[in-house]
Amino acid sequence: MSHHASEHPRVGIVMGSDSDWSVMAAASAQLSEFGIDHEVEVVSAHRTPHKLVTYGEQARERGLSVIIAGAGGAAHLPGMLASVTTLPVVGVPVPLATLDGMDSLLSIVQMPGGIPVATVSIGGAKNAAILAARILATSDAALADTLATYQRELAELVEEKNAALKARL
Amino acid sequence: MSHHASEHPRVGIVMGSDSDWSVMAAASAQLSEFGIDHEVEVVSAHRTPHKLVTYGEQARERGLSVIIAGAGGAAHLPGMLASVTTLPVVGVPVPLATLDGMDSLLSIVQMPGGIPVATVSIGGAKNAAILAARILATSDAALADTLATYQRELAELVEEKNAALKARL
Amino acid sequence: MSHHASEHPRVGIVMGSDSDWSVMAAASAQLSEFGIDHEVEVVSAHRTPHKLVTYGEQARERGLSVIIAGAGGAAHLPGMLASVTTLPVVGVPVPLATLDGMDSLLSIVQMPGGIPVATVSIGGAKNAAILAARILATSDAALADTLATYQRELAELVEEKNAALKARL
Amino acid sequence: MSHHASEHPRVGIVMGSDSDWSVMAAASAQLSEFGIDHEVEVVSAHRTPHKLVTYGEQARERGLSVIIAGAGGAAHLPGMLASVTTLPVVGVPVPLATLDGMDSLLSIVQMPGGIPVATVSIGGAKNAAILAARILATSDAALADTLATYQRELAELVEEKNAALKARL
Amino acid sequence: MSHHASEHPRVGIVMGSDSDWSVMAAASAQLSEFGIDHEVEVVSAHRTPHKLVTYGEQARERGLSVIIAGAGGAAHLPGMLASVTTLPVVGVPVPLATLDGMDSLLSIVQMPGGIPVATVSIGGAKNAAILAARILATSDAALADTLATYQRELAELVEEKNAALKARL
Amino acid sequence: MSHHASEHPRVGIVMGSDSDWSVMAAASAQLSEFGIDHEVEVVSAHRTPHKLVTYGEQARERGLSVIIAGAGGAAHLPGMLASVTTLPVVGVPVPLATLDGMDSLLSIVQMPGGIPVATVSIGGAKNAAILAARILATSDAALADTLATYQRELAELVEEKNAALKARL
Amino acid sequence: MSHHASEHPRVGIVMGSDSDWSVMAAASAQLSEFGIDHEVEVVSAHRTPHKLVTYGEQARERGLSVIIAGAGGAAHLPGMLASVTTLPVVGVPVPLATLDGMDSLLSIVQMPGGIPVATVSIGGAKNAAILAARILATSDAALADTLATYQRELAELVEEKNAALKARL
Amino acid sequence: MSHHASEHPRVGIVMGSDSDWSVMAAASAQLSEFGIDHEVEVVSAHRTPHKLVTYGEQARERGLSVIIAGAGGAAHLPGMLASVTTLPVVGVPVPLATLDGMDSLLSIVQMPGGIPVATVSIGGAKNAAILAARILATSDAALADTLATYQRELAELVEEKNAALKARL
Repeated sequence: MSHHASEHPRVGIVMGSDSDWSVMAAASAQLSEFGIDHEVEVVSAHRTPHKLVTYGEQARERGLSVIIAGAGGAAHLPGMLASVTTLPVVGVPVPLATLDGMDSLLSIVQMPGGIPVATVSIGGAKNAAILAARILATSDAALADTLATYQRELAELVEEKNAALKARL
Repeated sequence: MSHHASEHPRVGIVMGSDSDWSVMAAASAQLSEFGIDHEVEVVSAHRTPHKLVTYGEQARERGLSVIIAGAGGAAHLPGMLASVTTLPVVGVPVPLATLDGMDSLLSIVQMPGGIPVATVSIGGAKNAAILAARILATSDAALADTLATYQRELAELVEEKNAALKARL
Repeated sequence: MSHHASEHPRVGIVMGSDSDWSVMAAASAQLSEFGIDHEVEVVSAHRTPHKLVTYGEQARERGLSVIIAGAGGAAHLPGMLASVTTLPVVGVPVPLATLDGMDSLLSIVQMPGGIPVATVSIGGAKNAAILAARILATSDAALADTLATYQRELAELVEEKNAALKARL
Repeated sequence: MSHHASEHPRVGIVMGSDSDWSVMAAASAQLSEFGIDHEVEVVSAHRTPHKLVTYGEQARERGLSVIIAGAGGAAHLPGMLASVTTLPVVGVPVPLATLDGMDSLLSIVQMPGGIPVATVSIGGAKNAAILAARILATSDAALADTLATYQRELAELVEEKNAALKARL
Repeated sequence: MSHHASEHPRVGIVMGSDSDWSVMAAASAQLSEFGIDHEVEVVSAHRTPHKLVTYGEQARERGLSVIIAGAGGAAHLPGMLASVTTLPVVGVPVPLATLDGMDSLLSIVQMPGGIPVATVSIGGAKNAAILAARILATSDAALADTLATYQRELAELVEEKNAALKARL
Repeated sequence: MSHHASEHPRVGIVMGSDSDWSVMAAASAQLSEFGIDHEVEVVSAHRTPHKLVTYGEQARERGLSVIIAGAGGAAHLPGMLASVTTLPVVGVPVPLATLDGMDSLLSIVQMPGGIPVATVSIGGAKNAAILAARILATSDAALADTLATYQRELAELVEEKNAALKARL
Repeated sequence: MSHHASEHPRVGIVMGSDSDWSVMAAASAQLSEFGIDHEVEVVSAHRTPHKLVTYGEQARERGLSVIIAGAGGAAHLPGMLASVTTLPVVGVPVPLATLDGMDSLLSIVQMPGGIPVATVSIGGAKNAAILAARILATSDAALADTLATYQRELAELVEEKNAALKARL
Repeated sequence: MSHHASEHPRVGIVMGSDSDWSVMAAASAQLSEFGIDHEVEVVSAHRTPHKLVTYGEQARERGLSVIIAGAGGAAHLPGMLASVTTLPVVGVPVPLATLDGMDSLLSIVQMPGGIPVATVSIGGAKNAAILAARILATSDAALADTLATYQRELAELVEEKNAALKARL
């Protein structure tokens, strides 16, 4: 895999703990499927606050266009990153051992006026990648085409599954 | 106000009912403050499903880059728009008479794999506009500067309020 | 099984994904037990929105009397179908990996004024079928008799279980 | 108003307390708008259990096709009626002073296998009436036409509100 | 075990389904430990509503002093029994496959004015038995002594566990 | 009012704060209506823990048969009283400024094995009194008759309200 | 008032917005009542992230012993402060327009391993001050005496209210 | 292990049941890692209320500076201890078989004005120990250094995991 060695990543995937990788790997895989260069970094809002600030503040000048941040519980990483960058930040609520990710969701989505986080579903790392692609595609016609194709294939996949289900009946 | 008469809107603000305008007006005001051309449209997922499909399918070719969609209760508008466009869709959960917007939030954010909605806070129309601006700014350096200025001013405003609070004590 | 090949289905069972079949199969089984012709179709609100519209709009003319729709998470399928048909739509909240189906329930039941969905319990596919039968039985005396018999048998079953429990004590 | 004096009501609206009328009146009004004969009755699951049983058991033979039942808190009325009739029972969760109707919703919708209640939104009495009309329309072509017209008018109303909102901007 | 064959049961344990026995057996065991004659019966509010009414109405004259009723989901059994008897009814919320018993709890505890149910914790069948014993002990001095002894033994058990834990450290 | 000066109170109503009286007064009123001697006392689990222990430990010897305890938030009063008496303790969850009494309910009802609290609905002080009366009536035939009369009157009241509602239509 | 001009504040009260002062003022008042020097500062995790880091990092060397931080919604201030200091941080969940402070509570209390926040009740600014005093009193015998007196006075206040309530009856 | 035999424990870890040890052991381990003498005791609010009162009242004079209390369900132990001591009490919500610890959290954190509990995350026994250490470190410079080192090591650990994750990619 070459995504983390990318010279010119357009998307940064960050997570508060390496244990979040089991959820966040799906974001990386989906970006790779779309051919989008990206990087992966463990950045903890609570354990490495200075790294968080630096990462957010340098993100735009380093050439990133979107940051995807996954975190669980009192999930402060996406919101804190959003406070030190003007890039769009996509937040992925990671479910922990209790509460099914409801704490993660509320900690990410309920941001105060001025600092938004683009929140996706609980555990929705794949959708975070697709949202990042949609954002990039606002100025990348080829990627927009890729997304249109992807969306058509989703529909075809439904039809294949439909046929398979009926065949089973 | 000229925002709805814009010849070349870059953002579309849609809502399921005109009663949502009390919440969604903040999105329009913020976009205007940033100087971003936009349009406003009432589109109901449940009452005008065909208009919803048409709106979503024509959005990109009409020149829109982002759709902001507000809805309450079984809030299907943002998700259904996201299913018929490849543009990024920002969802605003509108709180209704009961449940404090929790139903709206879950109906918007918990999208299935393949079709993301960039969800902001309950009633967070202003943040939806800022998120739209961040998205546009990924390919608009002047807007990125505007956002950086805005973010600095937020900090200054905090200091002003801090001073005012201390003066009151 | 012949239910899906029925020439004249009176009930359509649709679901957003073939993975919902593990829940929705109970609806099909119960309809078959009642001798009610029905069909099964995978229709995704988000992945196949046009198919959804077509399915709903043609349902009445194709001879369906009731649609049973199961979906999970931001569960838009039942409500969107209800918006493009005047048939009664029965919604089954399918529980996903997190939140125990509470998101599914709220996304289905909290429909706006004008477009109702007849919502049953989380995972309640069997009850969706019984509700469909009750609806059909408003104009089908034989089916009403079948339902009365079924209800009596439920009571007898309770007594059998009661006896078995006491025998165990 | 003549609805309660109807010689041949097709729908029965029942509620646990006369205080529920502030919510349930909307069901009666909507049925009247559709020209559907109906009756109104206060029946308390907990205070008049025998009346409940009698009401449910005689409903079909008295000519009713649908029962709409509204109740709040530990809302047992819809489910208990469903247990003593084979008619479709539509349940309306009435919100009380605390919990925003969540207790009412769960008490109505989470019925056990065998006895469904067609649950609508919290406070959704109007939708309960529309659902009753959809059920009746499965064997009443004229009513189906009325519903199709109603649905078209909903769409037109959205457009009118859309125009009015734009005129205000 | 002789508890169900008791000639003069003072407590009736009823449950909506024999599957509730896995939870409710603890109530029977605790009553037996206290030497309190009791009976066990499967009575379903929804599947055997007439049996429910009869059971409740005859309970006092049959010599019962307390009814313990366990049920899950839209748990109507305790409340409906309370409506057809003046005996104290103790409700046990049984947790089902989803929602962790929160639906059961709200369906049991949120009774309207006039008809109380003495609700214990989710799955708290043992505590239901102890509560029944406390109720009986309001007019049974020997049982009150038994309860006082039981409470002392609880304290001693804590000390034993305390010692065991410290020994392990 | 003479209830608090009663020489031989059978029921003690206690509450954590005098501000709870707005809720708990209904318990006193209902007991008075039933002619049940009772006393009222402010006892705070957290502010007067020794008084709590003394109150609970002396309750039975002082002649009380039932304790009704109302409390809000982290509502420890009912459970702590139950731990220092063998009398039945009825808990009333008092709703505070936030959370609608859900915290109060869970803090009261979710007692550990060994120490039950007979929990009634949020704000259900009236029902607490009726439950206390049902408990006393297990050994007081006259009170049992009073309760039977009360229950009949509840049914009659429903019919009166039913007639009044119909007259209004 | 002199608390903000204190030369040697031992406690710092910070809040994300001056609008939180309506809640947080109670913390300042209680500290003043205990004679504890303190300072007040508006510090926003999201709008002034650098100030947050500086405030936290300098807190100990500036002589503070405890930080009290109030915030609402996605309330990141207490947790982020805790990540840049080793002082104990007391978090006050401030309730906003929706969700009754449940989002604030979860965002503050559900901190990951390594970085605790001492969370008090929703809106519990007064208790935050008392907790700060308890912390200071671990090494301040005079303050411990003050707290013991305060606790006795709480008990006396309960008795006064008790007497007043009984006098009213 | 010597922590429970400590001659001069500064922290007391108490829990309602020995079954809570699976959660609370992490508090003891963390205190040991910091070299903080502590003791462990099973104290049940409901089963050993007198022991609870004695433990709390003697805690300060016995030389304890902080009490850590873990409890689940209707978790009254931390709050009741806080009511009989002026020491800071740290509460750990222990999750039980249902509700994921939400009942435990609310029962611990929602304390009334006057009696705070320093609540940490659900299952957060390790963080309770770190919070206790932060409290002790307000008057123990060496411990403050230990905590600063610990915090630096947390950051280094994140970097190690970051490197390990990248090496895996």
